[in-house]
Parts: sequence; structure tokens; C-alpha cells
Amino acid sequence: MTQRPPYLAGLIGTGVGPSLTPALHMAEGRAQGLEYVYRTLDLNVLGLSPEQVGEMLTWARRLGYDGLNITHPCKQLVVGHLDDIDASARTLGAVNTVVFRDGRAVGYNTDTTGFAHGFAEGLPGAATGSVVLVGAGGAGTAVADALLRLGTAHLSIVDLDVDRASTLAHELTDRHPDARVEASSFDKLSVLLPNTDGLVHATPTGMAEHPGVAFDTALLHPDMWVADIVYRPLDTALLQAARAAGCRTLDGGHMAVYQAVDAFALITGVAPDAARMSAHFRDLVS
Amino acid sequence: MTQRPPYLAGLIGTGVGPSLTPALHMAEGRAQGLEYVYRTLDLNVLGLSPEQVGEMLTWARRLGYDGLNITHPCKQLVVGHLDDIDASARTLGAVNTVVFRDGRAVGYNTDTTGFAHGFAEGLPGAATGSVVLVGAGGAGTAVADALLRLGTAHLSIVDLDVDRASTLAHELTDRHPDARVEASSFDKLSVLLPNTDGLVHATPTGMAEHPGVAFDTALLHPDMWVADIVYRPLDTALLQAARAAGCRTLDGGHMAVYQAVDAFALITGVAPDAARMSAHFRDLVS
Repeated sequence: MTQRPPYLAGLIGTGVGPSLTPALHMAEGRAQGLEYVYRTLDLNVLGLSPEQVGEMLTWARRLGYDGLNITHPCKQLVVGHLDDIDASARTLGAVNTVVFRDGRAVGYNTDTTGFAHGFAEGLPGAATGSVVLVGAGGAGTAVADALLRLGTAHLSIVDLDVDRASTLAHELTDRHPDARVEASSFDKLSVLLPNTDGLVHATPTGMAEHPGVAFDTALLHPDMWVADIVYRPLDTALLQAARAAGCRTLDGGHMAVYQAVDAFALITGVAPDAARMSAHFRDLVS
Repeated sequence: MTQRPPYLAGLIGTGVGPSLTPALHMAEGRAQGLEYVYRTLDLNVLGLSPEQVGEMLTWARRLGYDGLNITHPCKQLVVGHLDDIDASARTLGAVNTVVFRDGRAVGYNTDTTGFAHGFAEGLPGAATGSVVLVGAGGAGTAVADALLRLGTAHLSIVDLDVDRASTLAHELTDRHPDARVEASSFDKLSVLLPNTDGLVHATPTGMAEHPGVAFDTALLHPDMWVADIVYRPLDTALLQAARAAGCRTLDGGHMAVYQAVDAFALITGVAPDAARMSAHFRDLVS
């Protein structure tokens, strides 16, 4: 018998049925000797609208939930329904973890902390002064903030939607006035990549349903590292090309695992075994 | 690692904080190797009205609950919010267990099945032809239906509120036309008890906060059995007097345990170990 209380958490979003997060949390709970139930709460299955996320939070708290993970399309919508928000989540304007504590709903963003922790684990000692980010969507935004916290002084953001890249670059400049953040276009990669310390790829290209590589891999060179946030498959065509070019690489599993590691710690107050969660994750995706 | 799904249940009512039911369910879940979280959902703590029980059911189902126990003051109120109701619960007009299954909310009453199972376990072979029931409240009603299902042909119901006893007697006569069910008063016990097979006490008298015995124990005799539904303490003044008078006795722990045994089976679909739950219950109340 455990002396710790039983924990209850869930994942709110659309299309969350195949998510690995519930299995990761519950397996780590079991390994810790905790009683931990983690539910998948799919808006489509439940017939609820994303705008009802506040109502879901109210009832989850009433019905004994300790916390929630929040994913598409509610990460921004949920911000208006919190009692407090962690500084880095506030900066991003996006929350993927809500903890109910002392009668309050507190928001966090473990996508951005998860990228930073996964980067520190998987690419120890890597230079971060100058980085190119490909993809300015939600994941790219979480990565960009993490990079600037990791010390990136010059960040170039490339997106097919140049306006989206520009908007993100302006927002990041406001939040991190000491850094140089610029929007750019794919055709400028031939100028950017020869001088960068590393590249993070944050578009869907390379996922099983979107095979390929988002840009010309002939531009990769052995003095740069390459990180992918795609994790299905773990070994993307981009990472294969990067290894062939002599680059250090970081697969998308690191960010995926550490968003769960950080959320587990926040929801339960118990420090998870990150190596065990990582091994379980790699077992699930292989 | 278990192959069974994780289970989530809760107890809705007022003043349910000290209830032993959550601990009983979770301890049995642990012993079965299940992941089972059982939450206490106190209306007073949550600031919800009893009339919101339907809304609570809706959200509990959405948020991944497998089932609920329902207690005062919602056992009747919940009936209007179910998709289906078990025959004995429908007969009683009271539900203490709701199971969410195949998108439907189905109501049961394990107070009445729990009394019957506990009686069969604790007083095997006892005659049930003629029984006196003291107390016509919610618990007494559940006991009365159980006795009539156990074959009681003549049931006398005694309550300080004679109207309440009469109303229950009429309802029971409608539901069990083959049985003779009569309301009576405390001063008739001197006539009733000499000829009865047994007596069930179903008033609060004898609980730690209401010490004493509800009637004159000089009327007890060795040819009758005595069952108490009070279980805090287990060994009430009534049961002590009954043993002194040579009666077989049944303490309130049997009904309390079997309402949980039956609810556990309904909510999880897994057969609990009744002896283990009983031992745990007696450990908790001792």
C-alpha cells in the first residue's frame, strides 16, 4: 500500500485518442507505486466545442482531477480560464498543463520546458548562439522561446507563411529584447545554414503521413547540429540526411518525453524517472 | 502491469468526507492489481445543490468516470437522470450506484442487495417468515425490500413517525402483494416480538452520537435473531443486549460491506473478494 494520495489527470483536445501521453503518465505512476488514472478527453468524441474548455476545467476540478494536459485546439483558449499562469507559459500565451492546487487552476507550458530539457539531455554542450528554426506554428513558437532561454543570440525563423514567421519574430523580439530574431524565407537557407550553430525543424514534414524533408539537405554541414520535433517516426529523413552530413542530431522523442516528464512532476508533485519514461516512450513508438 | 483498464469512481452526497467507501474500493482495487481511483465528491465542499446531481452525472461521464455511488440527499433525485434502472432499484425509487456503460447511465441499489447478501453470510439458515423492522427511513426501506425478497411473509414496520411507517407499508404491499406488511407502533413491540423470527433495527439510535437502544430489550428472547444496521460502533448496546438474551445477531458491518462489494462488482465488472473487503472494513472501524 502506498502512503501517497491517488492521482487523477486527463488530456483535453481533438483527435487525442492515439496520444502516447496517457500511457506514459500511467506507466511511470505504476513504476513509482502511485495510483494514477489518466483519462483521454477527446472533444470530438464528447461532442464538446473547444470554447467549452473553461467548463471542462471547472468540472474536472470539482470531480477530483489533480491536473490536465491541454492540446490542440485549446492551448490558447484555456489561458482565459486560469487563476494563475507560470511565467514562460504567460510569455507564450499557450498552456499545455493545468494543475489544480489549493483551489486554484495554474497553467504551465511543458512543450517549451520539455524542448529545453530534451535539448540539454540529447545535445549536451551544443552551441546555441546562432540557430535557424524551420516552422513558426505552435510547436515552433514553444521551441523558439526555449532556444532564447538557452542563450540563442541570433534566431532566424523560416516558414512557408512569411507573415507568420514575421509575426513570431516580432513577438519574440518584444519578449527577448537582447536577442536578434529575424523572419526569413526558405530561399535564404543557403545563406543562413553555412553560418549557423544548429537547426530545429518544427513543421509536420517527415511525419508518416507527410513524408519527405522540408528543405534541401545538401545545405547541411558537419559543424552544425540538427534537431527534429517529429517523432513518428523517430528517425526522419531529415535526421538520416543530417547524420550522413556529419551533424550531431536530436530526435523528436526528447521534446515529446520531457513535455510528459515535466507535466508528471507538476501534476503529481513526484519527480519522475526521465530515463524510464524515455525508454517506455521509445518502446511505444518503435 | 495489469491488462485491465484503469477505473475511476466517486461518491456523491453531503458530509461524505468520513465515508469508508472510497478506502474500501481502492484497497480492494489494489489487492486485485487494478488501477482504481475513487473520489469523494461532497456537495457541501463543492458548493453544489442536490438538484445538480444530474449535471454531476453528465460531467462525470464525460470526464471518464466508470461509475458513482450516490448517498444522502441524492438517492431519489438521481433516479430522474438515468438511462436505465435495475428492477430492485426501480422498486425502491432509490439508487445508490450508477454505472456508465456503452454511453448509458444505469442505476442500481446495493443497499438492498447488500443487506440481503450480508444477511445470507452472517445469519445462514435464519428463519425469515416473520420479521419486525424498526425504522422506516431510507435504510429501513432498503432493508424491507430485501427482507421481502428473502421470503418474509409477515413484516411489521415500527417507526416513531407512524405515518411514515404506514406509507412504507402501503408501498411495500403494492410491490409485494403476496406478503402481509403492516405498520405498527413502539408500544406494540410487546405483542410483536414474542412471535417474530427476527428483528432489524434501522434507526440512528446506537450510533456513537446517538447512544442507547430504541426500545425495551427485555422483550428479546432466544428464539429470535437481531440485526442492527448501525456500524459505528459495530457492537451496539442493542447487539450486546441481544447476545445476553441468547439471540443470534448480525452487526451493521455486513450490510455496509456488501453494499460496497456489490458496487465494486458493478462499477469494475471484476468480482471482489468479499472476505478481504470485510476484513479491511472491520480494521477501519475498529
